[in-house]
Amino acid sequence: MDKINLAEKFSLFTKHWSPKIIAELNGQHVKLVKFQGPFVWHAHEHEDELFLVVRGAFKMEYRDRTVELQAGDLIVVPRGVEHRPVAEHEVEVMLFEPAATVNTGNAGGDKTVAQADWI
Amino acid sequence: MDKINLAEKFSLFTKHWSPKIIAELNGQHVKLVKFQGPFVWHAHEHEDELFLVVRGAFKMEYRDRTVELQAGDLIVVPRGVEHRPVAEHEVEVMLFEPAATVNTGNAGGDKTVAQADWI
Repeated sequence: MDKINLAEKFSLFTKHWSPKIIAELNGQHVKLVKFQGPFVWHAHEHEDELFLVVRGAFKMEYRDRTVELQAGDLIVVPRGVEHRPVAEHEVEVMLFEPAATVNTGNAGGDKTVAQADWI
Repeated sequence: MDKINLAEKFSLFTKHWSPKIIAELNGQHVKLVKFQGPFVWHAHEHEDELFLVVRGAFKMEYRDRTVELQAGDLIVVPRGVEHRPVAEHEVEVMLFEPAATVNTGNAGGDKTVAQADWI
């Protein structure tokens, strides 16, 4: 019920590809993530996933096309759709997704964060 | 799966206290709203509600205290908690809440928007 400032929360971590939880509502988590470079191709079987760019820019690659996003843009990736976020420079993104969502979805691998931390 | 630009969507309407839907995921809606002045005191019996300030500032009044929010701040109002948003000047806010949420909750009245429009 208190306010949460996005810039202040982003200042609390530096690690890339490691989403941090800042709020929970209706079984959903609001997470913040920083990343640079390409992620792994993956899909989430049961979860739709929202990305809102807070600072910087990145590209959301789908198998058949790419969408370029800048600060103030959001995108929803429906469940089951393969996607790969790629950022040339470090980007700060807010995620909105079900609390059960694992970052690498069906792909696994060394970028997997099975249990995100609260900050 | 395409990008949605918040500023562009905000440019499409002027009416206050009339949330517009811009995205849906996992049974939740992302809505944009502009408002100025005081809303009605209300609570949502079954829905938690997230407010993210995109432009401007407003105060979230609870029965026992008030939280001041500016651009880049978000707040989650848990289900059942009476609240009243108040803005001195026009503010632009992104909402995240279950698709079934009605803006005035248990209060009703002439500010009620039973069915929000998509933009």
